[in-house]
Formats: sequence, C-alpha cells, structure tokens
Amino acid sequence: MSLMVVGSMAFDAIETPFGKSDRIIGGAATYIAWSASNFCQPIRQLSVVGYDFPKEELTVLEDRGVVMEGVQIKKDEKTFFWSGRYHMDMNTRDTLDTQLNVLANFEPIVPESYQGAEFLMLGNLVPAVQHSVIKQMKERPRLIVMDTMNFWMEVAHADLLEVIKEVDVLLVNDSEARELSNEYSLVKAARKILTMGPKYLIIKKGEHGALLFHGDNVFFAPALPLEDVFDPTGAGDTFAGGFIGHIARTRDISYENMKTAIIVGSAMASFCVEKFGTERLRELSKADIEARIRQFQELVNFDIELV
Amino acid sequence: MSLMVVGSMAFDAIETPFGKSDRIIGGAATYIAWSASNFCQPIRQLSVVGYDFPKEELTVLEDRGVVMEGVQIKKDEKTFFWSGRYHMDMNTRDTLDTQLNVLANFEPIVPESYQGAEFLMLGNLVPAVQHSVIKQMKERPRLIVMDTMNFWMEVAHADLLEVIKEVDVLLVNDSEARELSNEYSLVKAARKILTMGPKYLIIKKGEHGALLFHGDNVFFAPALPLEDVFDPTGAGDTFAGGFIGHIARTRDISYENMKTAIIVGSAMASFCVEKFGTERLRELSKADIEARIRQFQELVNFDIELV
Repeated sequence: MSLMVVGSMAFDAIETPFGKSDRIIGGAATYIAWSASNFCQPIRQLSVVGYDFPKEELTVLEDRGVVMEGVQIKKDEKTFFWSGRYHMDMNTRDTLDTQLNVLANFEPIVPESYQGAEFLMLGNLVPAVQHSVIKQMKERPRLIVMDTMNFWMEVAHADLLEVIKEVDVLLVNDSEARELSNEYSLVKAARKILTMGPKYLIIKKGEHGALLFHGDNVFFAPALPLEDVFDPTGAGDTFAGGFIGHIARTRDISYENMKTAIIVGSAMASFCVEKFGTERLRELSKADIEARIRQFQELVNFDIELV
Repeated sequence: MSLMVVGSMAFDAIETPFGKSDRIIGGAATYIAWSASNFCQPIRQLSVVGYDFPKEELTVLEDRGVVMEGVQIKKDEKTFFWSGRYHMDMNTRDTLDTQLNVLANFEPIVPESYQGAEFLMLGNLVPAVQHSVIKQMKERPRLIVMDTMNFWMEVAHADLLEVIKEVDVLLVNDSEARELSNEYSLVKAARKILTMGPKYLIIKKGEHGALLFHGDNVFFAPALPLEDVFDPTGAGDTFAGGFIGHIARTRDISYENMKTAIIVGSAMASFCVEKFGTERLRELSKADIEARIRQFQELVNFDIELV
C-alpha cells in the first residue's frame, strides 16, 4: 500500500466564537497526513514549506511514517499563511489574510522514490499544480482522489476542469457542487459532475454529513452530532485523509469499500473539530478511533421488518 | 393497536419556485392520517372543519380506516385556510394569508369511543387545545407524541411548556429546538429539552434528515437525496404519521423501535414532497413504501472491519 499525498503545509491563525489561536500548524497535506497515517504507512508527502516551518513538525510526522523527501524547504521564503474568522454557525468564515509565500511559485517535483504510488491524494491546491503531479507519474496510480474549493472555480476554472477529467474521485462541499454544476439539486449536480471525469463524487455537507455518488448509487454518511464544534479548520482535509487512508490500508477501490472509507473520514473529521488546528489529531489512539467509528454505527444502524 | 390523531384539517394554497396550487386539501391531521393509515387502522381522528370542507375528503379517509366521529363539522363556519410561498431553498417560506375560521374557537371533544386509545398523536395545533385532549383522556395513552412549531413558542410559550411536560415524544425542527432551548448546539438543545418532560426528542432537519435523542443516545435518519423537492408542505406531518403509524402497528415503544419508526417517517416524508399537497400520498402502494424504505437501508448501510 503506497500512498502519495500532495498539498500545502502551512501556518494558520484562526478565530472562532470560542477563541483565537496563535499562528499554528495547518495546511491540507498536514491534516491529510495526520489523519491517513492512522491507517497506512508510509505516506509519501509532496509539499513546500519556508525556512520558518518548524523542523520538529516534519520530524513528528516522519515518526508516523510520513516520508518528507518530496517536501521542498525554501531557504529564502516564508511558509504559506492563512488567517480566518468563523461565524457563529461555523459553516461560514471570512478570510482575514492570505500570504502565498512559498506557494506563489511552487513547482512540485515527484521524487523517483515516489513513482509507482498506488494511491494519489491531491489535497486542495492550485489546479495546475495538481495536474503537474499527475503528469509526472510514470504509471497512473490505481486511484486518484482530488479535493478542491470554490476559489479555483472562480480564478482557474479551465485548469480545474482539466484536472477533474483525470481523477477518479472528486471531493467538494455542497455549495461547490452547486457552483461547479450550475444545479441547485445535489442529485442533479452530482449527475452532471459525474460526466466531467470522476467516477465517484463525494459531496461534503459539514455538520450535515457527506454523500457519495457513483452511477445511480448514492450513499450517505452522517456527521456525528457534537456538543460543540470548536474549530472546523482542516475538517475537510482530515476527512480526505481518513478516506484515502482506509482505501490505502485495504487496497480495495470498490464502491462498497468507499462507503466504509467515508465513514472513516467522517469519524476522523469529527475529532478534528474538537480542538484548534491539528491538536486533537495528535493525541488520538487506535482505541479512540475504533470507539468513534462504533459511534457512527450506532448512529445510523436500524432494524426493519417490512410490513 | 388504537391510534388517535389530533390536528387541523384545512385548505392550503401553495406557491413554490416550481408552480402554484389552487386551494387544496391540507392540515396536519390530514397528512398524518394519509401517512399513518398505510400502517395501522383504525385511526381515530379528532379535528374540526367548516361547511365548505368536501364531504368526499372525509369519505376517502374513512375508506382507509380513519374514523371521523371526532371530527366536528361547523355548519356556519369556514375551514381553516393557510397560504404560503416557498423560497428557492424550499426550507424557508413566507405566510401570505392565515384565516383561522373554525380553528378560532375550536373546543375538541373526545368521543367516548376514542377512550382507551393506546397511542396519541398531537399534530401541530394551539397548545391549549392539545392539552385539553390529553386532559380528556380517562386513561393515559401508552405513548403521547406531540408536534409543534415556533409560532407557539412566541405567542403561547407558557401553555406550550405545560403540554410539553405531559408528552413522551416531542417533534420539532432544528430552529425550533434552538429557540425552545436557547442553545445553538443541537446536542445541548436536546439535553435541555429532555429535562422539560419528553423522554424522546426528534429534531427534524428537512433535507438534512432527522435526529432522535433519548438519554445519552442519539440516532440519525437521513433524508433521501431527491432530484427535486416539489412542495415541502406537510412533510413534517407526513413524517409524524409514518412515525406513529409504525409504532402503532408494532405496538413497540422501545428506543430501538423508534429508530425504525423514524426511518419509516422519513420514507413517507420523501414521498410527500414529490408532488403538491397530499397528491403523492394518495397514490402510494405498499410496494412503493417497501421499496422506498429499502432505499433508505441502501443509503446508510455499510460494513466495517475495524483496524
């Protein structure tokens, strides 16, 4: 099981109705790695950071089987920085500051040792960069999963459509699915997006769960009802990490197994939001994860004897 | 299995982004009866209509086992009328007109033949009227289920709290749960509401499904992802009808069986929204309902082998 993860490793500063963080560790590929490394190792990480990114943050992930050969460290540049403020509903946020820094001219280079990766997880990033990684793979991975966001639909629409053509599984949230398809109904949106390339579409609905579409099939994974959502930052990336981590562990890319992978992703995301940044993900044991997945089973399992 | 249903039988005029209805048959108790009568008969209906309510609308329900002895027909008054317009999201609506008519001075009288009902479904109605019905029951039903709405939280708060104390299961939607509890988190809202009387709380989230809370347990029933929601009027009542219909059929008031009842309710509601008013409910066969319930099983069932 060889998994390659592409995405940002970054600094975030977050404000929520419950508190305010200092500059903390963030980035799509960071969350994905923290999440996926519970299920499969090694993980071949492809990213870029600046001179200011703490060495020990790389080491602690290396200790969890995350290979850093593909993570460029730019000696003269600063790490990508994002700052945002969440509203009371925790579903909407304002971006307060974005400093691209190392991401401005990021040219990913896939190390020779990463070639032959069976699974490729493209975290949210400039579509052209995602595409460049796919093109560098000498052999197409068995499964390519791609995350993206509305921002790219607005500033890099053509590039985005090009990458989408190449992937097996696309991850978007509900408003992004609507924007990408120009359809309000998520069922109609899914049908349209499934003609754009991906054979599987996952629509994330935050606290309302996630939907998996494939052909005429649809599967729904709930979100765990939580007392408080403390910080939603990284929940989508953590979901993606759990999803691809389960797939890579089981090496089973069937629709049936993707259902399970979505539950695993939802379970991981439910931890992520309990504390600021990656804090909660760092303290998880296998037992914590198993107990949480059982909670998801409890949440939706029912018996029925038809009339 | 004896089920008693209390609520309005009415006329509605509905506008949605997809079309506009004439004055059509509506009312909470109407939808509940149409829905519940698929699962259990007889249903002892308690309501009030005016001289203008079509006789054949009572007959067609009588043919489905709905007893009309408790339905008062006011010779000199008109039937309750509601008119509303839904917004594009189909979750929000404006009331265009409300004519209370027969509901203005409705004094429910429980017929002697209704005494001893095992299950009591209180559809959305003036809380004092709901309470009067409970007080008229010589023997407390085994299970009292109550639906209500935000309007009563604003104009009859004290009365509402009095009835809530007396019921076993309370049905509200997410914004009503927040309003009633003064808590934003639905988990916290549920905990608070469960101290107000009910042992079970169902929070309906429309297209995002429904949650059942009981003690520290929580169960989630998804909504079926639909291509189009044509008209959401009556979906909550239809849900309630499926819920109480399943409970009355099985005569099992355990938490486990309530999970199943919520799935049945969700399945019935998913039909309701497919056409205007009660239209879709009138054409359903047992096979349609069984097939829809199987779709719900498909929607959420997954296998998992823990790491």
